[in-house]
Amino acid sequence: MQFQDFSTYNAVTRLAALARDPHDLTAADGLPSQRVRDFTASFCGFDLLYATQRISPEVLGTLQDLADEAGLVETFKAMKQGAVLNRIEGFASENRQVLHTASRDVFDEAPEAPEAAAKAKQELSKLHAFLDDIKSCRLVNANGQTFTTMVQVGIGGSDLGPRALYIALKSFSLPGRAARFIANVDPDDVAEVLQGLDLSRTLFNIVSKSGTTLETLTNEQLVRAALIREGLDPSRHLVAVTGEGSPMDDATRYLGSFYMYDYIGGRYSATSMVGAVTLGFALGYDAVIELLQGAHQVDRAAEQRDIRSNIPLLMALLGIWNHNFLGHATIAVLPYSQALARFPAHLQQCDMESNGKSVTRQGQQVAWQTGPVVWGEPGTNGQHAFYQLLHQGTEIVPVEFIGFRQNQYGLDLEVEGTSSQQKLVANMLAQSLALAVGKRDDNPVRSFSGNRPNSVLIADRLTPRLMGALLAIFEHRIAFQGFCWNINSFDQEGVQLGKVLAGQLLRLMTSNSQIQPEDLEDDGREKMLLQQAGML
Amino acid sequence: MQFQDFSTYNAVTRLAALARDPHDLTAADGLPSQRVRDFTASFCGFDLLYATQRISPEVLGTLQDLADEAGLVETFKAMKQGAVLNRIEGFASENRQVLHTASRDVFDEAPEAPEAAAKAKQELSKLHAFLDDIKSCRLVNANGQTFTTMVQVGIGGSDLGPRALYIALKSFSLPGRAARFIANVDPDDVAEVLQGLDLSRTLFNIVSKSGTTLETLTNEQLVRAALIREGLDPSRHLVAVTGEGSPMDDATRYLGSFYMYDYIGGRYSATSMVGAVTLGFALGYDAVIELLQGAHQVDRAAEQRDIRSNIPLLMALLGIWNHNFLGHATIAVLPYSQALARFPAHLQQCDMESNGKSVTRQGQQVAWQTGPVVWGEPGTNGQHAFYQLLHQGTEIVPVEFIGFRQNQYGLDLEVEGTSSQQKLVANMLAQSLALAVGKRDDNPVRSFSGNRPNSVLIADRLTPRLMGALLAIFEHRIAFQGFCWNINSFDQEGVQLGKVLAGQLLRLMTSNSQIQPEDLEDDGREKMLLQQAGML
Repeated sequence: MQFQDFSTYNAVTRLAALARDPHDLTAADGLPSQRVRDFTASFCGFDLLYATQRISPEVLGTLQDLADEAGLVETFKAMKQGAVLNRIEGFASENRQVLHTASRDVFDEAPEAPEAAAKAKQELSKLHAFLDDIKSCRLVNANGQTFTTMVQVGIGGSDLGPRALYIALKSFSLPGRAARFIANVDPDDVAEVLQGLDLSRTLFNIVSKSGTTLETLTNEQLVRAALIREGLDPSRHLVAVTGEGSPMDDATRYLGSFYMYDYIGGRYSATSMVGAVTLGFALGYDAVIELLQGAHQVDRAAEQRDIRSNIPLLMALLGIWNHNFLGHATIAVLPYSQALARFPAHLQQCDMESNGKSVTRQGQQVAWQTGPVVWGEPGTNGQHAFYQLLHQGTEIVPVEFIGFRQNQYGLDLEVEGTSSQQKLVANMLAQSLALAVGKRDDNPVRSFSGNRPNSVLIADRLTPRLMGALLAIFEHRIAFQGFCWNINSFDQEGVQLGKVLAGQLLRLMTSNSQIQPEDLEDDGREKMLLQQAGML
Repeated sequence: MQFQDFSTYNAVTRLAALARDPHDLTAADGLPSQRVRDFTASFCGFDLLYATQRISPEVLGTLQDLADEAGLVETFKAMKQGAVLNRIEGFASENRQVLHTASRDVFDEAPEAPEAAAKAKQELSKLHAFLDDIKSCRLVNANGQTFTTMVQVGIGGSDLGPRALYIALKSFSLPGRAARFIANVDPDDVAEVLQGLDLSRTLFNIVSKSGTTLETLTNEQLVRAALIREGLDPSRHLVAVTGEGSPMDDATRYLGSFYMYDYIGGRYSATSMVGAVTLGFALGYDAVIELLQGAHQVDRAAEQRDIRSNIPLLMALLGIWNHNFLGHATIAVLPYSQALARFPAHLQQCDMESNGKSVTRQGQQVAWQTGPVVWGEPGTNGQHAFYQLLHQGTEIVPVEFIGFRQNQYGLDLEVEGTSSQQKLVANMLAQSLALAVGKRDDNPVRSFSGNRPNSVLIADRLTPRLMGALLAIFEHRIAFQGFCWNINSFDQEGVQLGKVLAGQLLRLMTSNSQIQPEDLEDDGREKMLLQQAGML
């Protein structure tokens, strides 16, 4: 395993040449039915339809060459086996393994990273016992009543992934169980969530690896104060998900602790206890296991070298083609599934925090574009919102559509001869086609230039298992891209400066100082900023 | 009022020259306290801090010249007075007035567009009476019980704006009142919303200007079926917001109709009956009036020609500087307010559907970039998610921060000497500063290149009145940009092609046809697409 600069690969040079004349999807024979048939991949329950990308067979072959030349699959395997991939050579860095895949490597006799997998199994056993205690009424409130709601208090990776998965799988909830989430340091976030709850029957799941996250600790204090106001004992209502031995790993203050580990980054932690505790409470332990199975199946299948049968790898390379060679700055993830309403927000974190980097693994400034801006909302809603720009704007936005052949609730109705689910999928496929082929019209306002690249990822039904698979497909799409760009996708040093400056501003606010002449040399700017903002 | 091409303005030529060497915020004297003081604007309760933009006084002066040369304020005034601005010269187009401002021009004796304002007043009177009937128990369910929930069924402009405003102002709800929203044709969206409701005490507000929107009519059918299953009479539970004389304007099927008009585009309709009915139910009539007052105040104040005292105009020009001259493809709107969680989604529609265009008002292809990609999530959540890319990525993302000095609920707690609200604002200002000035470090991974342009928009507290002002500030920011780019910001022809193709795919799905050899000449591609997607 050896990293080299993106710009030095032979395939990159060839792709740059091919990008001067990319496949024209609007030509008379630009998108024949044979192409639709040929450019389909199947993988772990999903089909990827990618004939609507601006690629020729030659481009596809060269993307395969890039994958091979960059050793993407080899690095991926090394990651799963515990290589220290979270590092920058020659500089202080986190120097950690990257083992989120171990959190679901709990089914095979010979896991790839045995030690991490054993710890994952151990935490799952603790979770199983905890959930059984709730189910069998051994764990109840002070009045002997069962718990009905779990509120997860966390932020970033301790919020977005678990929240997206819960919303995605809410239709599978156990009777009488619900989950809620508090993340923002905005006190109105806490107030809004708490006001609708029966606190006496609510568990709070406080999630922070370090046990020191500002927002989470602040919100924990707000929660504890609210419990005390209601005459409840916080230690009977709070559980912790944290690092072993952190300040939050304290049996006197929590019902118990579930552990998370340094080798699982926050944005990759949804399948660890960070997601499993709340999901297990709301959906049951079996649903968690199915979720892990789906993810694990993808972890194994993503080792295939042939990009035509490895969807995460193929999506990674199509993304690189669109971003680095065709020059598109963003990517939209558009699920045609209301259940996936918050999945784009999770991906925004997972992708942009992983690949929004400018330094190579050797500590050099990159000379190529790294991660794009990721954004998206569910269809068909988006069709009535921002799709105007997708079709006729001057910014070209590559799209990753996601859809399902069947709905979750099973409630549907035929109107004008088709079900809502059929309408939903027909709309998604129609958008894919419309973006690709466009349309000429004598009225310029009704002309569509087409050639707007996109893929469609489709599966049968959004179950816990397929949700696990979908999550892992995107995690690995992102990791493959980071390997290819020769960046460390697993640190987040970019969040530090803002934290430091926020601390400085808070100190100035509490010292309650007016601007003095001598400030002009040190904190003058910061005080002026606070004054102009009306905070001093 | 006369439109000319963006590229022909003298100021554009001068700005292009100035953009070769934009202000360096990372220089030793790049952001002194005097600059922070000077680059602040105040307007209708909001302050805009824009010292962290890459502008010099000369750039600011030239942006003023551009505003003057392009006659942006004159066009804005003409819009409010009823000019037919929704048109393309020489081609078939909607040919409509653009009068969303009239929906709140109900306070002055001499409204700017008297006829439209009179209609707005009339609908407000109807709404007032309707809400009084509910309050005084004249309008009740079949068992004589009051209604507690209103579910708005609409999509796009009939959903995003009203939903964003309701979430923003939920803390001001009347006791025992709530609103919910159904938009997606995904049947799981309806199922999820309905499953938690007592239908007997629920009103459904069906919103479609034409009365023919596919998603909305389909969801209305699902709602009617659900009511009937519960033994309820739909005509006692449904109200309509629609065009006068549309198929939905039918007193036998609805409790009543509130009217919307052709001269108010969906994405600008939140202050018309499209938003007012549900907001009025949940928050009360007075809150609606305050919302309209806030918007109306901005409508008047945005006539000022001096960009330093006209925040929407200033934001428009700063956006043009960042997009057209500094070349940044996207803009992030980042509210430090959980209440504004869905405001970026509303803006995404309002901005991208308005300015995602490629044709001038004269029907020519534009030769400059028009609207950027708009995206965003609330802070501080985003700090733990995608801010890594904002600080250290290779894509530069200009940011519009939004914040408030006080929270809504009044529940807060001091932790480590500061309140959550103070932490929230300190974080926002710290991010603004960090993005602008960056930081050098011997460790390349801990270096921040800075020069990432942003502004901070801040006000006291998010009340109905300030929400109205905020909404109008962004509406006019968007309209000013469209005027400047010489595009029609008020049509949405780009959504048509997908609709046509979806209809074609649905017909193929219901004809249930297998691929035949003769299809290769006509529908072969579409059938193949359906087959590869597993829908045939």
